[in-house]
Amino acid sequence: MLELFPLFTGLVSIFSAFALIVYILKKPAGNEKMVEISKAIQKGAITFLNEEYKIIAIFVIIVMLFLFVASYFTNLPWQTAIAFLTGAFFSGLAGNIGMRVATKANARTAEASKKSVRNGLLVAFSSGAVMGLAVVGLGIIGVSVFYLTFGEDSSILSSILFGFGFGASSIALFARVGGGIYTKSADIGADLVGKVEEGIPEDDPRNPAVIADNVGDNVGDVAGMGADLFESYVDSIISAISLAFLVTYAYAKVYPLIIAGLGILASISAMIFVRGKNVYSALRNGLFGSAIIFAVIAFVITHILLSDYNPFFAVLVGLIDGIVIGLSTEYFTSEQRKPAQKIAKAAQTGAATDILQGMSIGMISTAIPIVSTCIAMVVAYEFAGFYGIALAAVGMLSTLGITLATDCYGPVADNAAGIAEMAGLGEEIRKRTESLDAVGNTTAAMGKGFAIGSAAITALALLFTFVKKAEEVVGVINVKLTSPYLMTGIFVGAMLPFLFSSLTIGAVGRAAGKMVNEVRRQFREFGILEGKGKPDYERCVKIATRGALREMILPSSLAVIVPIIIGVWRVEALIGLLAGATASGFLLAIFLANAGGAWDNAKKYIEAGNLGGKGSFAHKAAVVGDTVGDPCKDTAGPSLNILIKLMSIVSLVFLPLFG
Amino acid sequence: MLELFPLFTGLVSIFSAFALIVYILKKPAGNEKMVEISKAIQKGAITFLNEEYKIIAIFVIIVMLFLFVASYFTNLPWQTAIAFLTGAFFSGLAGNIGMRVATKANARTAEASKKSVRNGLLVAFSSGAVMGLAVVGLGIIGVSVFYLTFGEDSSILSSILFGFGFGASSIALFARVGGGIYTKSADIGADLVGKVEEGIPEDDPRNPAVIADNVGDNVGDVAGMGADLFESYVDSIISAISLAFLVTYAYAKVYPLIIAGLGILASISAMIFVRGKNVYSALRNGLFGSAIIFAVIAFVITHILLSDYNPFFAVLVGLIDGIVIGLSTEYFTSEQRKPAQKIAKAAQTGAATDILQGMSIGMISTAIPIVSTCIAMVVAYEFAGFYGIALAAVGMLSTLGITLATDCYGPVADNAAGIAEMAGLGEEIRKRTESLDAVGNTTAAMGKGFAIGSAAITALALLFTFVKKAEEVVGVINVKLTSPYLMTGIFVGAMLPFLFSSLTIGAVGRAAGKMVNEVRRQFREFGILEGKGKPDYERCVKIATRGALREMILPSSLAVIVPIIIGVWRVEALIGLLAGATASGFLLAIFLANAGGAWDNAKKYIEAGNLGGKGSFAHKAAVVGDTVGDPCKDTAGPSLNILIKLMSIVSLVFLPLFG
Repeated sequence: MLELFPLFTGLVSIFSAFALIVYILKKPAGNEKMVEISKAIQKGAITFLNEEYKIIAIFVIIVMLFLFVASYFTNLPWQTAIAFLTGAFFSGLAGNIGMRVATKANARTAEASKKSVRNGLLVAFSSGAVMGLAVVGLGIIGVSVFYLTFGEDSSILSSILFGFGFGASSIALFARVGGGIYTKSADIGADLVGKVEEGIPEDDPRNPAVIADNVGDNVGDVAGMGADLFESYVDSIISAISLAFLVTYAYAKVYPLIIAGLGILASISAMIFVRGKNVYSALRNGLFGSAIIFAVIAFVITHILLSDYNPFFAVLVGLIDGIVIGLSTEYFTSEQRKPAQKIAKAAQTGAATDILQGMSIGMISTAIPIVSTCIAMVVAYEFAGFYGIALAAVGMLSTLGITLATDCYGPVADNAAGIAEMAGLGEEIRKRTESLDAVGNTTAAMGKGFAIGSAAITALALLFTFVKKAEEVVGVINVKLTSPYLMTGIFVGAMLPFLFSSLTIGAVGRAAGKMVNEVRRQFREFGILEGKGKPDYERCVKIATRGALREMILPSSLAVIVPIIIGVWRVEALIGLLAGATASGFLLAIFLANAGGAWDNAKKYIEAGNLGGKGSFAHKAAVVGDTVGDPCKDTAGPSLNILIKLMSIVSLVFLPLFG
Repeated sequence: MLELFPLFTGLVSIFSAFALIVYILKKPAGNEKMVEISKAIQKGAITFLNEEYKIIAIFVIIVMLFLFVASYFTNLPWQTAIAFLTGAFFSGLAGNIGMRVATKANARTAEASKKSVRNGLLVAFSSGAVMGLAVVGLGIIGVSVFYLTFGEDSSILSSILFGFGFGASSIALFARVGGGIYTKSADIGADLVGKVEEGIPEDDPRNPAVIADNVGDNVGDVAGMGADLFESYVDSIISAISLAFLVTYAYAKVYPLIIAGLGILASISAMIFVRGKNVYSALRNGLFGSAIIFAVIAFVITHILLSDYNPFFAVLVGLIDGIVIGLSTEYFTSEQRKPAQKIAKAAQTGAATDILQGMSIGMISTAIPIVSTCIAMVVAYEFAGFYGIALAAVGMLSTLGITLATDCYGPVADNAAGIAEMAGLGEEIRKRTESLDAVGNTTAAMGKGFAIGSAAITALALLFTFVKKAEEVVGVINVKLTSPYLMTGIFVGAMLPFLFSSLTIGAVGRAAGKMVNEVRRQFREFGILEGKGKPDYERCVKIATRGALREMILPSSLAVIVPIIIGVWRVEALIGLLAGATASGFLLAIFLANAGGAWDNAKKYIEAGNLGGKGSFAHKAAVVGDTVGDPCKDTAGPSLNILIKLMSIVSLVFLPLFG
């Protein structure tokens, strides 16, 4: 009975998501022009997804075959291949639902904003909530089904669950890396030729790359973010289940699933708090409300089930760590705080000082998340051992339903502002949608911090799971730090995030270059600005899609192949590799995300009329900083989340091949 | 007899240095104007050193007292305090000699260039050679004397030697961090107001910060580099001596000293190769010549002494690793190679793309040094265990005498070019000194890479020494990676280089701000540009000095205090801290140094007339990149070398306090 509870909460989650979809689709989509733009964005997004699916299909088939073959020669259960396929399918499904709804909700948000900001908020937030609920619902259903089917057979359960996680990771890899390259190459292409060279405003419908740019927000921030957190969510639960054998509590194995289920219920009930005139405080109330509700019911249920509070405290420190990281991100990136304003001031002496100040702030902003996560790790360990560390990850991600809702609300609001501009809805409506968008930027920044933090703690949980499982398979390993093999692993592992970031930043540059050429060509040949011809949006979408998917292959292959090679060489080197990559990836991701966010908001601070305002010397300098920060925060940084988790899960899946 | 050989080579080294000093001082210093400028630079440099010594004196006294007290309560030998003082004194002495000679050689190089480029090269290189020979000479004499005095008493020898290393590290900390902040704040202050705001040329004598800028080259690149490598040099020998108990070769304990002594002889003999018309190939011949000579005689001596080649191969892989890192640095930063030219091309679309391309190149440039060092570590270990890893570090640093000579030649040539400009020696002489300077930039970049690589391998050697010594003192530690304490250490350790870099980059910004205000004030109040008044160079020197020394305190304290706190908490966390800091510090240092060097040379590539040349849109963008890169490559990057070594040596010295 108790074992069915998580499955039940998953179904509640999916049911709620459908109710919200019906609610959104009932809303009017606005005038003909708005519908037309919205459809173009939707078409572009679906084009990207379909192209991406083709590549993913090849990848999935190869991996499945490999897993089947490996199950024949090693003690890897053949069901792992099935679980892998299911994980990939569920993650893809969640992303697909979320993105389809987001691209339908954008025009409806703009239309609802005609009534009031509050109405616009409700539509945009509901769309984000669909994504959030789809992710946690499908995540918990997937893990529960495998748990219920194979839960009795401990010897194969873990392997099968790792397969499920690996499937989720694969989709996340494609969605984050490909989506990240797509969104920034389209953005830079649109801005560089449109805004900078031709001097037309942002979101001007004459810009051939404008649809690709709006598609990018959905591809990167909705589908990419969703897949990233789907991965963290299921991986954290899986590692807690796999480490349950280390403790002796009753229900230890199903406890992580129950905690996750309670988190879903808390998220859904807290969604009613998302109201009020002030958009930012409405969203914040929802977030904090869900955390408090969750903490209370988790405490009560732990008391009833286990009559031991230790596991609950492990969950709690994870939850608190997530909040601390979110708040720290907000502090270091918000335009209302000192760090971003310091960057704006540095912009007064030019682009170089703007960039140096941003680098300095990005670097120092790593301290709080690192220290907070270390404290959470040690405290969770003191309460419940390695199992406790995995529980901390589950705790941090427990209220993901609503966290992701506030994240995915951002791109919808951003698109709504774009549609309001392109469809010429007038000053008032544009202002309203832009105020929604502004809050979306803040929550998106916090969401990025949260995504990084959850990736790091999930990767840690997976790392310790790997160590424990490796001991089972190849005997207690001599993983002393005195070993130069382990140290080699740490060095090479720490280097991989640098290599990976270099490749993704370089990829954006190359893909953006192609986009720039195309936009220039269309302006020149079609005479769009002279009013003679119309822009060809689709071609730009195709170029961005192809560029992103091609550029994705090299870094993605690295993430899968390197741990296997190192693992075959020496398992202790692989442990070092995972430790080094997790530490350095966590740091670099925070550095890139926060520096990028702070540069962005320093520019916005100036644009709000400070230090000379738009068009001033400081503004021009801040625009340079913002452009540098864009691929850092939207491509390289988020891709690192995937890298560190993927390498751990790959190591776990292929463990039977090592040693 | 054999034990006296290293001491003998040290004396030869010092004697050769004195001979070179006599040779340099005999050269004419040029006309009155040149002597005047040279004296001003020298005075500024001495002012900085004297101010620095006051702070160092306080620091040294506090640490000595602390060591004396600790020796009373723990089994730390009291002689450690004496060794600490000696290490600090020897490092300071080497830097003092090198810098005094460099500031005397600058005008003489300019004067000698009147005859020919070759004559100029000989003076400048001789000055660099004085620094190189002083460093290796005093280094080997210091270690030898303590080795000869306490060599019989193994129980205290290591502790005493660590004290000597700690003294050297302390000076390096002040010289690198303080010097790094000084040189860039003076440089940015001079450029921002002089070149950018007022449009007067580089090195214009009307610029009040021009002397401070020239002083900075000596303070940062001569004294700072010298102290950094003095530290690496003695630390590598010390760790090899301390690990000799792990192996059973005859002469294992004195072998590292003998290898270092052979390296000194090889360096001195190779100095005769530094000739020929082409400046760059002359220096390169010297470098490769010394490596080949050293390898041959080390092979022969190993054969005679040990009749076992394994230790020799460990030495050899270190030597090769150093060459690989140097060549990799040259490839990624030289203006004649693809990476820097790619940045220059990216500058055609603006500062943002210039910076992104540089970041991408800086990040990917970490791969070769990391992989090469890991291979060296593993191979050295296979040949001679942990002792072999320390020997690899000794091998890499064996020919330091000549490597440092080519490094420290750069700032002298740079100063000579400045003096030629300020004293108005005419087009021809300026061109000659600038051609010397240009080669100096390339060798300086290679030298930076070498300094980072040697810091990393020395830190590794110290780390393994710490693990082995910690096992002796507190029993075999449970340093399994399954421990969240160790993982906490890795996370926090990996974070420290980010924090440290943030502080040093921020410090340059603040110190440069003060300099900018002063230069602006002098232009405004004195009417210098209108020819009414004269600039007050000394005030600028004082401001840069004070700013640098004040800003140095916070990051320096961190480096000393954090390992002690973590060590007192848990020794296994400290091991993680050192491992994490070494990996992340190595990576970040290479990233910052190579990105900075490549941005610099991309600008120079454009200035040489490519892609529109000076004053073009691309050039302006490249100048922004260069300004961003300056504190990265000259302050933050080099300071990390010190951080990783210092934390290891602090851990070794204070080991009796832990556990």
